[in-house]
Formats: sequence, structure tokens, C-alpha cells
Amino acid sequence: MTVSQSSDRFRDRDKHSQSNFDVDYVIDYTIPPNESAEAEASFTQLIDALSSGGFATEVRPGRTSSSLLIFVKLASQSLLQSQIYRARVQDWLYGVRPDAPPAPSPSAGDDSDNGDNMARYFADDEPVTEAERLRLAYMLITLPRNEGGAGVTQGTGQWRFVKRVFPLHDRAFNKQWIADWSKKYNLDEGDIGRIRDRFGERVAFYFAFLQSYFAFLLFPAAFGFAAWLLLGPFSWLYAVVNCLWAVVFFEHWKMKEVDLAVQWGVRGVSKIQHPRPQFKFEREGVDPVTGEVVKVYSPYKRLAKQLLQVPFAAACVAALGSVIASCFAIEIFITEVYNGPFKQYLTFLPTILLTVFNPTLTTLLTRLAEKLTELENYDTHDAHQASFVRKVFVINFITSYLGIFLTAFVYVPFGKILVPYLDVFQLTAQRFTAEGKPLPTKSWQINPDRLSKQVMYFTVTAQIINFATEFIVPHAKRKVFKTVEKVQSELSEKSTEHHRKDHPEEADFLERVRDEAELDEYDVTIDYREMVVQFGYLSLFSVVWPLTACSFLVNNWVEARSDAMKIATNCQRPIPWRADSIGPWLDALGFLSWLGSVTSAALVFLYHSTSNGAPDGSPWDIKGWALLLAILFSEHVYLVVQLVVRGLVRKLDSPGLQKERRERFAMRKRLFERMAKRDVSAAVGGPGVSGGEKITREALEDEARRLSVAGEGTPEKMFWLRQRGASETIQVGKALISEMTANKTKASKD
Amino acid sequence: MTVSQSSDRFRDRDKHSQSNFDVDYVIDYTIPPNESAEAEASFTQLIDALSSGGFATEVRPGRTSSSLLIFVKLASQSLLQSQIYRARVQDWLYGVRPDAPPAPSPSAGDDSDNGDNMARYFADDEPVTEAERLRLAYMLITLPRNEGGAGVTQGTGQWRFVKRVFPLHDRAFNKQWIADWSKKYNLDEGDIGRIRDRFGERVAFYFAFLQSYFAFLLFPAAFGFAAWLLLGPFSWLYAVVNCLWAVVFFEHWKMKEVDLAVQWGVRGVSKIQHPRPQFKFEREGVDPVTGEVVKVYSPYKRLAKQLLQVPFAAACVAALGSVIASCFAIEIFITEVYNGPFKQYLTFLPTILLTVFNPTLTTLLTRLAEKLTELENYDTHDAHQASFVRKVFVINFITSYLGIFLTAFVYVPFGKILVPYLDVFQLTAQRFTAEGKPLPTKSWQINPDRLSKQVMYFTVTAQIINFATEFIVPHAKRKVFKTVEKVQSELSEKSTEHHRKDHPEEADFLERVRDEAELDEYDVTIDYREMVVQFGYLSLFSVVWPLTACSFLVNNWVEARSDAMKIATNCQRPIPWRADSIGPWLDALGFLSWLGSVTSAALVFLYHSTSNGAPDGSPWDIKGWALLLAILFSEHVYLVVQLVVRGLVRKLDSPGLQKERRERFAMRKRLFERMAKRDVSAAVGGPGVSGGEKITREALEDEARRLSVAGEGTPEKMFWLRQRGASETIQVGKALISEMTANKTKASKD
Repeated sequence: MTVSQSSDRFRDRDKHSQSNFDVDYVIDYTIPPNESAEAEASFTQLIDALSSGGFATEVRPGRTSSSLLIFVKLASQSLLQSQIYRARVQDWLYGVRPDAPPAPSPSAGDDSDNGDNMARYFADDEPVTEAERLRLAYMLITLPRNEGGAGVTQGTGQWRFVKRVFPLHDRAFNKQWIADWSKKYNLDEGDIGRIRDRFGERVAFYFAFLQSYFAFLLFPAAFGFAAWLLLGPFSWLYAVVNCLWAVVFFEHWKMKEVDLAVQWGVRGVSKIQHPRPQFKFEREGVDPVTGEVVKVYSPYKRLAKQLLQVPFAAACVAALGSVIASCFAIEIFITEVYNGPFKQYLTFLPTILLTVFNPTLTTLLTRLAEKLTELENYDTHDAHQASFVRKVFVINFITSYLGIFLTAFVYVPFGKILVPYLDVFQLTAQRFTAEGKPLPTKSWQINPDRLSKQVMYFTVTAQIINFATEFIVPHAKRKVFKTVEKVQSELSEKSTEHHRKDHPEEADFLERVRDEAELDEYDVTIDYREMVVQFGYLSLFSVVWPLTACSFLVNNWVEARSDAMKIATNCQRPIPWRADSIGPWLDALGFLSWLGSVTSAALVFLYHSTSNGAPDGSPWDIKGWALLLAILFSEHVYLVVQLVVRGLVRKLDSPGLQKERRERFAMRKRLFERMAKRDVSAAVGGPGVSGGEKITREALEDEARRLSVAGEGTPEKMFWLRQRGASETIQVGKALISEMTANKTKASKD
Repeated sequence: MTVSQSSDRFRDRDKHSQSNFDVDYVIDYTIPPNESAEAEASFTQLIDALSSGGFATEVRPGRTSSSLLIFVKLASQSLLQSQIYRARVQDWLYGVRPDAPPAPSPSAGDDSDNGDNMARYFADDEPVTEAERLRLAYMLITLPRNEGGAGVTQGTGQWRFVKRVFPLHDRAFNKQWIADWSKKYNLDEGDIGRIRDRFGERVAFYFAFLQSYFAFLLFPAAFGFAAWLLLGPFSWLYAVVNCLWAVVFFEHWKMKEVDLAVQWGVRGVSKIQHPRPQFKFEREGVDPVTGEVVKVYSPYKRLAKQLLQVPFAAACVAALGSVIASCFAIEIFITEVYNGPFKQYLTFLPTILLTVFNPTLTTLLTRLAEKLTELENYDTHDAHQASFVRKVFVINFITSYLGIFLTAFVYVPFGKILVPYLDVFQLTAQRFTAEGKPLPTKSWQINPDRLSKQVMYFTVTAQIINFATEFIVPHAKRKVFKTVEKVQSELSEKSTEHHRKDHPEEADFLERVRDEAELDEYDVTIDYREMVVQFGYLSLFSVVWPLTACSFLVNNWVEARSDAMKIATNCQRPIPWRADSIGPWLDALGFLSWLGSVTSAALVFLYHSTSNGAPDGSPWDIKGWALLLAILFSEHVYLVVQLVVRGLVRKLDSPGLQKERRERFAMRKRLFERMAKRDVSAAVGGPGVSGGEKITREALEDEARRLSVAGEGTPEKMFWLRQRGASETIQVGKALISEMTANKTKASKD
């Protein structure tokens, strides 16, 4: 009984109505009707592998008639503990921890009785969080057999019937979490820390970033509001402050990130790379350095494939750009040139076209990006993910900002030159009107409000739409599907048959697991993407509409809560991976912040006069050199300010860095003391302040004595023996000095 | 006798004619005539301090009648060895070494007999180089008493009579060194390694940089020669290749620097900071983290003083700029406008003015920079040095490049507008000619050759002058002074009196030491400055005259040898400090490399047409926007290329990184093995592949048995007991699968 008691102590779950039955992971196992024999054989292998990996297993029927649910838990406390110890030692060796973990006491040897001891031991010193436990369990499931795991990797080869391996939500915690957050205005470090303990550092970093960004948004929101009231759009003062803010935020986050990583004890975990099971190696080679067998894939081949990113980016620009540009052209034509029949319906045409084409193309391109990244064949997860994120960023950059870029830097400045080419549409449209007489058109005027309307659309409406598609739609969809399924399963006998088989005390639990098995995996990349794109609007275009930050402030308050809800209810519980930063998104942030200095300068320069003077529709006799000078100046001021801010931020202290210093200092002190002890015991003659002189004198006298015994010394030895010991040197020196003084006084007397 | 034998083994010096008598350091002690009593008291303290720090001392008269030479050596081998061990442990704790140094064997305890053992022990494993020995001896002399040193810091407070503490040159090595290098075309890593062993890493890094730069210069020299033949000046192709080369060189050096630091085992030594004895603290505080007493100086005060750098830079620009600009204006006026009497003499006027004012101002400003840096009151040597180097770079940037900038971007483009203002000179000149009739002037033409002449002057003539002032002049000066002194001392009796006192077998040695005491300290900053400024010419202006790199190639071959000569003969032996990089100069290199992309683009854009078409003297209807676009484009291409090159260079392997990987791997492996052993001995139940299943089954069966004894279990416990062990799970699963298949086939039959 003690074993399960101690395991209860590990996982302080609400035991009563919403217990997870001590399950660590659930494996969703599919049995395709035409491969049931293979699936059966593979199932046997799977259970064997898990069992020999140290897991207890249970199997239950899934919801549909072609799936099984395999429940998995670590069979013994001692296995968990030795895994934890091993993982912590590895962390130490890779420099993630400053210090070796204390070894488990040998008395905890006997498994059945002393699990308790161990549990208490770990719990007192460094508690094992649920995230750590689940992460280690997952590692044990997926690690290759020769590294001590069960070698089960979902969806590939032998394990192609393993559809998903997922942990179970902690309902009680989730409920509390959502309730807490919906009542709070501001999240503190404790809130983020609790996320970290449950969902791991990767998810916690997202929320920490979101929270830090939210807190930083307060300033541009307040300043933006003031600027909106007092300065109006395209104010250079706003642009300068906004850029400065972006720099400060970016540099602050870079430090905060390190700080959090240190506080969470994960600084440098990115150095511990997880091999990608999908990696295809060309040959096995022997590492010249370590002598280990490593899997090699030619870096030149990879480079060649990475170069495909260039045509890929070009394809993205071409595909998405042409869709956006042509919708844009149609829109301008219809709203601002065309004045014919059906105008009220035709105005919706470009929006419809965009709504159809844009997501389709984005999905296609994202899939292409996935394929490309797959092709690049990285050997580690992180490298794969970083490469994929880069591509996703390119796609999102184009879909998000290209429209505004076109308005700001093509439509308004060059509109007069370009619009005549829209005659193409006019001619096409004329074909469809039978009479062949020219269509009624308005005389065309550049619409300077267009830019601000577009920015407002992207910063307000698009955020709301986004929220809806991200959160409400999947929720509703799931509800509908579930109802449909229920009706279906009530109609068919088969599944109720299963349900009848459920033991009554398990029935609720199993029903819950079957629900969770149908949820999507949580992908933190999507959430980061959204925030980074949002930051981009603020950095690049908020000078057009200074209220941007206010809108984002509101949005992000909701965002944090809706993301929490999404994780808690719309997604499977994520596997609690560790991370030591927000990863490749940091570069994207830095890029957007820098680009902001360029676009802001250009926007202010181009539009400042329009917003001040009367917009007469043709203030566009811009001086090219002045525009370029403004951009050049702004960009370089930005870069210098960045250097200065970086220098200043580095000098700041932070809890994380203090912690690191404290730990390092303690470690050094302890080791120095140990060394000093050894020094004494080895009697190498520690010099010290007091011991020094004695040794010196003794040594000298010793040497002198021996030399005098030996009779004759070399000139060298004689040199060091002319003055025996310090006192003789002092005597001789004093004599020399007084002699010199005497000489001098004599000389001056002469 | 064994002690000195083993010390012989440590320092493999040429023993015969040029022995240094085992001296580690010489202290040059001055006795001002009016303070001889204080000097005498201080002398006693000094010898006491040294003696209690573990040094043997000898005193001899100096050359002049107001100086003493104090000879110092470490009194015992065991002191040296315990210091070495201590220093190596510290390195390990600061992460400089991957691994703890092996503890000296306890049998080496007895000092007089077993010094041998120790020496052999260190020598076999990691030999103690002369640089390490001298560095530790110096540390022991200068460290405060409470840290185990003698607390002697030259020139301050109590020790104001200590003029200099310097090690003695190893004549035999120096001779060999110069002979070797003068015969070699190319220096290899072994040559640099020998420098490192003698003069420490700081000096070795300079030579490594010089060598690396020299090797990299081969390419631009060859390409520049080809470009000079085929493309002529202001070729955009040359500019692109040159910028690309600068990027590659810079990124390569950044990696090479790390590589060397790892190979030399000094990576991260800059983290071990040496406190500056001149640091003035405001108060003593307790470090909140470590609890140690630390000396505090308000960072805000320092920041306020650092802000003085801005007016300082402005003052530099104003002072040097106005001197250069007015000389420049006078020169133009005289050579290109003025046509009156004394022209042949007056043409030298600006050169004379520059030669007088420029070095004077530079010296003044450098001294001001020193004062300012002193005022900023840094607590560590490195911070002080970095701040000083920044200021020196600003001064040198202005003196070196401002003239060319003025020619290229003011004189030629705006000459037509500006030259009329030179009438001021004309009017002044007219005053001096009595008749009041207008002076004869040429009609003014912009001289497009001026720029290339100036660049050629700076890249060839200035380098030669530099070599002369740096190397030949001090050498000659010293020779002359020495002769004068000899004559003087032959005339006076006093000093010959001393010399008569010298023991005949020491006389030569003492004479040599007296010579060395009069030499200057070697300052590696000056040498770096020269190279960085040279790199600047290449990066910024070589597009004007593509042969620049050829000139530098020749110059640097000589430079390496003359710098070696300078260290060996013109300077005191430097104290062998460690370093892990070329320090703040790296930033200067990066800045110049970046600025090169801007100036090259501007120069090519402005001058390309002149050099191609006939220089008609007025091609200066430049399009501002096109120029700015060219600069903007070039700069951003540069930045992108830099990112790409950085990415590629990072992927390269290098001996240093391999060494680091090997050491880390060995360390991890060893520790893992030790942990694994402990794991076994602690019997925590290592999971492994084989042990896992047994444990699981046993644990499960165990649990089941106990539960069945206890009678009733909770639903949770019951859940995990439905299938006892893996085999039951497999059975149940198989049954479920076949049932499903049966259902399905039934359904499909229906």
C-alpha cells in the first residue's frame, strides 16, 4: 500500500470525482479494419516494449470500434526516482545545473518499503513537479531501447498504429486555473510558475512572454492614446517613442528570458538535444572526437536543400502577393473607380476572394514548408522546429503585412500612375455589359483614409476574427460533432456494447479519456505566431493609428485567458517539454522591431504633411533623397539606441541572475574549501600569509647550508647567497641607500 | 641541490653566457634625494613583504645613483606548485578548464626532497610554462596580503618608490626567435605557441591576429592587383569582393579567436577579473548574494562620468577636425588656387602645420582620454582597458580617416561651392603683399587625383613613417642616449664606483639588467591600434586604389618581425598576462568592416563615372536619392551577407572546438560512469532494458498480492489490477481486437 500512498503524495490530485486513476499516459491505438492482424501483432510488441521499459499497462476499448486505449503508468517509484536522478545528473553535466544533484541515500534500496524515503527526500530538497514526472515518463516511452526506453515513437514504422501518446488533463487543476485567471487583472510569477509545474517550460515560456508583452503594452497604450488625442496620426514623436519602446521591450525580454530560464533551472537545456526519430541518415560514422558511432547526413546535401528556401520564399511572395495584389486592385477598382450596377454586391467580391484564396494558399504553403523542412532532414527536434518556424514566419509576414505595405508604399504614392492600368478590369467589365457603352466610373481620387482603415481592420477586426476562429469555432465544432456522434452511437448497437462493458466505477473516467483522445494536439507555435504578428503591426504600422496598442492591450488580456481555456478544454494536455527561451521567434521579434524603425520613418515622412495640411489628394511630389535620408537616419539611430539599451539592460540585476551568482558562488566556495582541505592533508605547504615567511627562511637557510657543505657553487647560486635572508637584504639595501645619499650630499656640497 | 635542479628543469634556459640567475622579477626602486629616509623605511617594508610572500630577495645598486635593483625569485618549488594547483583549480571553478586539475600526490609533501616528484608530475601532464610561472609570481607579488600575496603595487601609496616590476628577457630565446622569424615566410601555430609560452596569451593573441590577418591579406592583394590591372579604381566588383572579404575575415577571426582560446586553455579567463588597485570605492557593502564584503562605487556616478565621453568625442572631432580641415583648406588654396610668390615653400606649410599640431593634439587628447578613463573609476583592469581603448579608437579614427573623408565627400563633390570661401586666405595673403593688388591665382579646377594620392600616401608612405617612428627612432634614440650616458658616467666617478663593486661573475648580468630597467614597457594596445587602423584603410578606402592590400601585405610581413624585434630589444619583457580574445578591438574591426560597406558604395557611386569617362572636373550633378539608395542597398546586403557568413562559419569545425568537445565528452563519460556505479551500489534499481520487466512484474504482483490481502481496493487500485502484468493486457487487447474485427465483418456482411 505504501507505494501507491507515496505516489499519491507525488501527484497531489483531486482524488474524488475527477481522478486520473494514476495514469501517466494514454496511447490511442487505431486498428484499421483491413490490417487487424498486423495491428494485433504490433499491439503485442507494444505492450511488451512498454512492460520491459518499466511501465504498467491496462487496455480498454476506445470510442469507435477501431481504436483501443492503452493506459500506461510508471510501474515503480524507484524507477521514477532513478530516472529523475539520472536526468538531473545529465543536466549537471551539460551545465544546466550548477551543481550535482544529491545522490539518493543508499538506504532507499529496497523497493517495496523505502519508496517513501525517496519520495520525501526528493520532495524536501527539490520537489519533482508533475511536468518533470510526465516528461521523464514520455522520454522513457520514446527513447530507443538501447538507451533504456521502450522505443515507442508514434506514427512511424513498427508503431504506425500508435496514433497519439498523450497525458491526461488534471480537471481539478484546470478548473481552478481558469477560475483564478478570469478573476485576475494581472498574472504574476506564481501563476506562470504553476503553469510551468503542470505543462512544462515550453508552455510556461509562452505565457511568460504573453504576460511580459501585456505589461509592456501598458505604456504604448497610454502614450498612444495621448498621441491620438494630441498629436494625431503620423506623428514623428509617436514614431520615435514607439521604436524606442520596441527596442526596450525586445532587449528586456531577451534578459527576462535568460532570467526565467535560470530561475526555472533550465538555462542551456537547448544544448541537450533530442534526436528526431524521423531523421534519415546516410551512413553511420565514427565521431573522430568521442569515438562514438553517430548517424551522419551530408551537410552539403542539407545545405543544397536549405537553398530551396530561397525559391520557396520567392514562391510565397509571388503566390500570396499576387492574390493580395489582385484582390487589392479589384477592390480599388470597384470601390473607388467603378460606379456601375451591382456595386453594393461587387464590393464584397475582393473580400470573398481573399477569404477563399488566402487561407487556402496559406495552408498549401505551410504544408509545403513542412515538406521542405522534412526534406532538410534535421537530426534534432530543435533544428527542425527552428527551420519550420522561419518558413512559417515568411508566410505570415506576407499574409499579414503585404496588404498594408501595398497601400502605404504603392497605392498612395504611385496611385496616380498605376490606376490607369486598372482599365483592364474596366474593359473586362465592359464585355459583360451587352451594350458596349463605357461603364459609369467615378473620377478617381487617392483615398488617404484607406491606409488607416486597413490598419484599423487588421488591429481590431482581424484580432476578433482570429479569436473566433481560434477559440470559439473549434469549441462549437466539437460540441456539434459530439452531439452528432452521440446520436450516431445511440443508433448503433456496437459502441453501446462497449460502454456496457465499462466497469461502473471507471465509466466516467473512460468517457472522459475518450473525449480527450479526440481533441487536437496543442501547438504553441500557433500562439507565438499570433503574438509575433501582432507585435509586428504595433512596430511597423501603429504610427498610422496610435490607438493600436490600446486594442492589443484589451485583446491580449483576453488572449491569455482564451489560450488557457484552449489548452484546458480544446486540446489534449501538452507533453511538458522544457525550453530555455521562446526560440526562433526571438529573431522574428528582433527583425520586426528593426523593420519598424524603417517603416515608421517612411510613413511619417510620406504622410506627415497630409495629416497636418488639408489632404488635397496629391501631396506626392516626394523628394526621394529626403525619404531615403529619413529612413537611413532612423535606422541608424535605431541601431545605436539598441546598442545603448543592450548595454544598459545587461548591467541590470535580476532575480535569476542573482540566483545563478549565488549558486555559482556557493559551489565555488564549497569546492575551494574542499581543495584547501586536500591541500592541507596533502601537506603541499599552503603558502598563506603566516606560513610564507617561515618556509622561505627555512628553505633559504636549508639551501645555504647544503651549498656550503657542497663547497663551491656556480655564479648563479652564489648570486642568491650573497644576502642570506630578508634581513641581510635589508641591511645591504640600507647601506646602499645611505651611501647614495651621502654621495649626493657630497656632490651638492662640492 | 635537488631544488635548484628541479627549478632548472622548469626553466630550460640557456645557462651559460646569458643566464638570468634564476631571477623571476626585478624591482626597479628609485630613491629621490629628498625622500631618502622614507625610501629607506619603505624599502625595509618591501623586503619584508616580499619575504613573507614567499620570495627570496637580493639587492644591487642600479645604474644611476638614485636607484636600486631588487632581484626576486620564488623561494621554494612547493610554493610555486601549490600556487599552480590553486590557480588551476580556480580556472576549473570558473569554467575555464573543463576538468579539475589532478591533485598533487600527497607523497610530494616533504619539501626538500620531493620537489622533484612534483616537478615531474606537472611536467608530464600539463607542463608549467615560463609564462605561467611568471604570471603566478607576479600575482603573488601584487595580490593583497589577505589573499596570500605580498601586496606590492607599483607606483602607488606606500610603494611609490617602486618604479617598475619587470621580468628579465631570455636572451637566448629572443635571439633564436628573431633568427627564426627573419628566415620564415609564414608563421605557423607552433611559432605563436612559443610566443604564448614565453610572453603569455595577451601578446600571443596579437601575433596570432597579425598572422591571421596577414594570411587573409593574400587574397585581396592578389585580387586587388588584378583589379588594378583590369578594372581600375572605383570598380563596383572590387568593392563587393572587398566587403565580402572583410566580412569573411571578421567572422573567421571571431571563430579563430575562440578556437585559439580553447586550444590554449584560456577560454573564459576574462571572467576571472583582476581588481584594479587604483579603484577608489565609496563605501564597503555586503554583497546580497554571496555575503562577502565588496567595495562599491555608485554605478550612477560612473554612468554620469561615462556620459562625458560624448563631449569628449565632440571635442576630438572639433579639435582634430578643425586642424585637419584648416590645413586641408590651406593646402588646397596654396596648391590649387594660389599662384603667387614663395609657392614652392608655401606648399610645405600645411604639411608642417599638420606634423606639428596633429601629434601634439593626439597626445593631449590621449592623455585626456586616460584621465577620463581614470575618472570613470572602474573596479577591474579589463573594464578600464576597454573604456580606454574605445576612446583611443575615436581619436585614431579621426586622425586617420577624417582627411580622406573630407577629400572624398566634401572637397570633390562640393568643391565648387566651397572653394570661393577660401577667399579668406586670399584676402589675408593680400594684406601681406604691400601693393594691395590682387594676388595671382590659378582658375580653380577640382583635382580628382587628389583622393587617390591621399589614399596612396596613407597606405604606403604613412606606413613607412610609422615603422620608422615605432621601431627605428626608439632604437636609435636609445643608442644615442646610452652613448651619452656612458660618456657621462665615465666622466663622473660615482657610478663607476658602483660598477667596481659588482662581483666579476655578476657584472655582465647586472649590466644587462640595468639596460633592461631603462627600456619602455611594452604596450600591446599600440600594436593593435596600428593594425586596426590599417584594416580600416583597406575596408573603407581601398576601392580608391586597389593596390592597397599589396602594400599592407608587404608592410605586415615586416611588421610581425619588427614587433618581435621591438619586444625583444626595445622593450622590457612584458608581464605574461592571459587573455581570451583581442578584446575591445574586435568591436572596432566590426565597426570598420560595416562602415566599409557604406563608404565603398558611396565612393563607387560618386567616382565610378569619373574614372570611366574622361574626368572633366564637373561630373557632380549627383542624384541624391540614387546615392542614398546605393548606400542603403550596399549596407543591407552587407548585413545579410554577414548573417549568412556567420551562420556558415559557426558550422565549421576547428581543432579548438574539437578539443573542447573531446574534453567535455570525456568528462561527462567519466562522471556518468561514476554515477552509474554509485547507482548500482545504492541499488536504486537501475531500469535498463533487461531489469525493467522483472521489476515491473514483481512490483505488480507484489502490489496485487498485498491488495488481495487487504481485501477491498479503491476504484483506482482496482483499475490497475484488472489486467495483471503485460501478458494479461496482451490477452485482453487481442480479444478486443478480434471482437472489433468480428463486429466489423458482421456489419459489412449485414
